[in-house]
Amino acid sequence: MILLYPNKIKKENTNIISYANRGMDLEYLINEANNYYLLNDLAVIYKKPTPIQINKVSFKTGKPEVIKGSFNQKSTLDYVGLYKGKYLDFDAKKTLNKTSFPLENIHIHQIEHIKRVIKHDGIAFLIIEICEKIYLFPGEKLIDFINNNDRKSIPYMYIEENGLLINYTYNPVLDYLKVIDKYYFKEERD
Amino acid sequence: MILLYPNKIKKENTNIISYANRGMDLEYLINEANNYYLLNDLAVIYKKPTPIQINKVSFKTGKPEVIKGSFNQKSTLDYVGLYKGKYLDFDAKKTLNKTSFPLENIHIHQIEHIKRVIKHDGIAFLIIEICEKIYLFPGEKLIDFINNNDRKSIPYMYIEENGLLINYTYNPVLDYLKVIDKYYFKEERD
Repeated sequence: MILLYPNKIKKENTNIISYANRGMDLEYLINEANNYYLLNDLAVIYKKPTPIQINKVSFKTGKPEVIKGSFNQKSTLDYVGLYKGKYLDFDAKKTLNKTSFPLENIHIHQIEHIKRVIKHDGIAFLIIEICEKIYLFPGEKLIDFINNNDRKSIPYMYIEENGLLINYTYNPVLDYLKVIDKYYFKEERD
Repeated sequence: MILLYPNKIKKENTNIISYANRGMDLEYLINEANNYYLLNDLAVIYKKPTPIQINKVSFKTGKPEVIKGSFNQKSTLDYVGLYKGKYLDFDAKKTLNKTSFPLENIHIHQIEHIKRVIKHDGIAFLIIEICEKIYLFPGEKLIDFINNNDRKSIPYMYIEENGLLINYTYNPVLDYLKVIDKYYFKEERD
C-alpha cells in the first residue's frame, strides 16, 4: 500500500508492517474490531466457536473436561452478527499467493451457505488478505465469479475491482463496517 | 394440554406423549424444525457449537484430536439464524417447575446479549418448555419482566399471557416460525 502524505513523501505499508510486527494477524484484527463495535454499541458480531465433536468427558477435576474430541468440518462461516438490523455472516481468508486467491480456500458447503444467506436477504462476504492488503469481498461477487468462470482461483485484479479495500485506521485498525456502510447501506460513517 | 376434538372427546397431551415416547426433547424438536427450514429453503437457522477452550491437541491418529479441552461459559444464546432478512438469536430452556420459570436458567450476560440484539433491531427470544407446553417468549417481554419485578422467577401465568404458544404440527413438530410470522411479521403462513 502506498500512502501519499501531505508532504508528498511516499510511505509503503507502514501500518501493515506495524501490525505484523506486533504479531497481529487477520483474525486478531477482526476480533479487535468486533470488540470495538460491541463496546461502542455499534454492532453485535462474534466468532463462532470451533465445532468440536465431544467424544469423551472427564469429571476428575470436579468440573467437566473434554478428554477426547474431534474437529468437525465447518459448514458455515467463521463470524456471524447483527448490524443495523441486518444479519452478517463472513469468513476471513489469507493467501500468500501474490497473483490470485485460490478457491480451494473455500469449501463447497460454505459456498452453499453464502448463497442461502444472500437468498434470505442477509449479508455474506469474505475478508481476504492478499498482497498485504485486506479486502471485503461481497458474497454476490464470489458467486458471480464461480458461476461464470472455470478457474480455480480468483485473479487479484478481479478482487481489486470487485472487492472493497479496507483502509487501516487507528481504532479499530480494521474498521470493516465502514466499507459495509458504503457498499450495503450506501452511506458514510464518520 | 387439553385438545377438544370435533366430537368433543377430550384428549390430553397426545402429541407431547408421543414425542416424549420417541425420545425427543426440546433441542431435538428445534433441530428438526431447523433442518426442515433449511431443506425447504425457508430460513437458515443453526445451533452454535458448544464453546470449548482447546487446551491440548494430539496428532497421534494422523488427524488432530482434542485431548484436553474445557467448557467455556456461554456469552450468547444457543441458536442463531436468518429469516426473511431478519437476524434471529434464541435459546431453548426447559423447566420442570409447574408454576414458574426460574430466572437462574438465564445468565446475566445472556440477558445483556438479548438487550443488544433487540437494540440493533434483531429478533431475540427464548423457547420455554413448561408444564408440557412450549412457548416462544419474546426477549422484549423478558426484559420488561426483569425491569419491573424483583422476583427470581417468571410466573407461569405471565408466560401464558405474554408468550406465544407453539402448537404441535406434523412436519416439523415444532414449527416455531409460524408464531414468529404472527408476532414479528404480523402475517400468517400456510
